[in-house]
Amino acid sequence: MAAAATNPRTPPKPAMRDSLIAAAFQLFLERGYEQTTVDDIVTLAGVGRRSFFRYFPSKEDVVFPDHEQCLDDMTRFLAASADTDDPMVRVCDAARLVMRMYAENPTFSVQRYRLTREVAGLRTYELSVVWRYEKTLGDYLRGRWADRKDGTLRANVAAAAVVAAHNHALRHWLRSGGEGDQLAEVDRALEFVRATWSPDAPAGTGGDAAEGADDVVVVITKRSTPMWRVVREVESSLDES
Amino acid sequence: MAAAATNPRTPPKPAMRDSLIAAAFQLFLERGYEQTTVDDIVTLAGVGRRSFFRYFPSKEDVVFPDHEQCLDDMTRFLAASADTDDPMVRVCDAARLVMRMYAENPTFSVQRYRLTREVAGLRTYELSVVWRYEKTLGDYLRGRWADRKDGTLRANVAAAAVVAAHNHALRHWLRSGGEGDQLAEVDRALEFVRATWSPDAPAGTGGDAAEGADDVVVVITKRSTPMWRVVREVESSLDES
Repeated sequence: MAAAATNPRTPPKPAMRDSLIAAAFQLFLERGYEQTTVDDIVTLAGVGRRSFFRYFPSKEDVVFPDHEQCLDDMTRFLAASADTDDPMVRVCDAARLVMRMYAENPTFSVQRYRLTREVAGLRTYELSVVWRYEKTLGDYLRGRWADRKDGTLRANVAAAAVVAAHNHALRHWLRSGGEGDQLAEVDRALEFVRATWSPDAPAGTGGDAAEGADDVVVVITKRSTPMWRVVREVESSLDES
Repeated sequence: MAAAATNPRTPPKPAMRDSLIAAAFQLFLERGYEQTTVDDIVTLAGVGRRSFFRYFPSKEDVVFPDHEQCLDDMTRFLAASADTDDPMVRVCDAARLVMRMYAENPTFSVQRYRLTREVAGLRTYELSVVWRYEKTLGDYLRGRWADRKDGTLRANVAAAAVVAAHNHALRHWLRSGGEGDQLAEVDRALEFVRATWSPDAPAGTGGDAAEGADDVVVVITKRSTPMWRVVREVESSLDES
C-alpha cells in the first residue's frame, strides 16, 4: 500500500508497526504472554488501540508478524516458476524463503520459539500458519503434476514432506539457540526430500533440467498379475509423459 | 477408568456421552455451530452442564469425540510392534485405524467434515489433532530408526507423508459424501508412501503374511530403463516371496 516503495518485494516497514512488535515482545518476556493485554502493548508503544488493530487482527498475530509477507513472497516465487524448472527443486527453494525469514533475526526467532512452546494457543496458531505454507506448496505441485495419474496424491505427500523437512531443520536450529549454520541444516533436510521424488534433478539449482526424460516410474501391481499386463502398465506410464 | 470393563480396547461408551453428541450435532446442523451454546446442548440432552464438562473439556471437543480413543489405540498398536515388523508397514497400518474410525459412521463423519469446512475454529482444532497423530507416528519411527544417521529426519518426513496420504484419501471420501470404497483409496495412498521409504517390505500385511501370494509388488524404475530390465526386476520381486 506504500505510495512510493523503492523495492516492491520488501516494502518499507512502518516504524509504528516495528515499535508495536518490540513493545509486545518486551512485555511477553517480562510478564508472560497471557498476562499481557493489547492495552499494555499500546501503552508501552505510546500509540492508540486502533493503531494496533490496523497492523494486527489479534494479539496472536503480533507474535508472527512476518508470515503474511513470507506467504506472499512464496506464492509469487512459485508463480514465477518456468515449465522447465524441476517442481521439487522449486518447492525446496520456496521453503528456504521461510528459513531465511527466521534467520534474519535469530534473537527474535528464538524468543518466539520459546514463547510458542509455552502457550498452547500460539502453538495452534503456528500449526495453522504451517498448514498455509503446505497448501501453497501443494497447490503449485498439483498444477505442475496435473497430467500425472497420481499427481494430486504425489503433490499432497511431497508438500507435506518438504514442510516436515524444513521444520525439522528449523526446530534443530531454534533449539540450539539460533547458533550454527542454519542454512546447511535446511539444505541437508530438503535435499533428502528432493532426492526422494526427483532423484535426477540437479540439486538446488532452481531446475535447469534437460534430463526430465530420466524420470522415475512407479508401478504397483499384485503378485498374481500376469507379466504381460505388468509390461503394458509400465508402457502406458511411460506414454503418459 | 471403568472398574469392570469387559474389553479393555474398546470400553463401553456411556449412554449419556452418546446423547450429548447426538444433541450437539442436531443443534449444530439446525442452527449452526457458533449459534449453539453448551446450555442449548445440555437442555436438549436433558442433563446438567457438569455432565457435559465431565465428558468434554469444551464445545469443540464434542465435535471430535473419538480422536482421544483413536490416538490411544494408535499408541498401543505401535507399542505392540515387534522388531521384525517393517516400520513403514506398521505406521501405514496405524493410519488405517483413523480411517476405520471415520468409516464406522459415514453420515456423522460427512456432517462433521462439512461443519469443519465452515467454522475456522474447528479447522484449527482439527489441525492440532492431525499434528498429534503425526507426532505419534513420528515418535515410533524415530525409535525404530534410532540407529540410522538420518533417522530423525527420515522419521519426521515419513510421518508427515503418511498423514498427508491418509488425509488425501480421507478427504476424497468425505467430499464424495462418504460413498464408495474408502479403504481401497486409503490403501492406494498409503502404498505410495510405504513404497517410497520401504520398497522391499511386503505391503499392508503387518507381518501376518498368509496372503503373500496375492501380495502387491512395487517396481520403481527410471523411464530410460529398457523394458527387459523392468521385466527382470518384476520377476525377481516375485521370487523374493
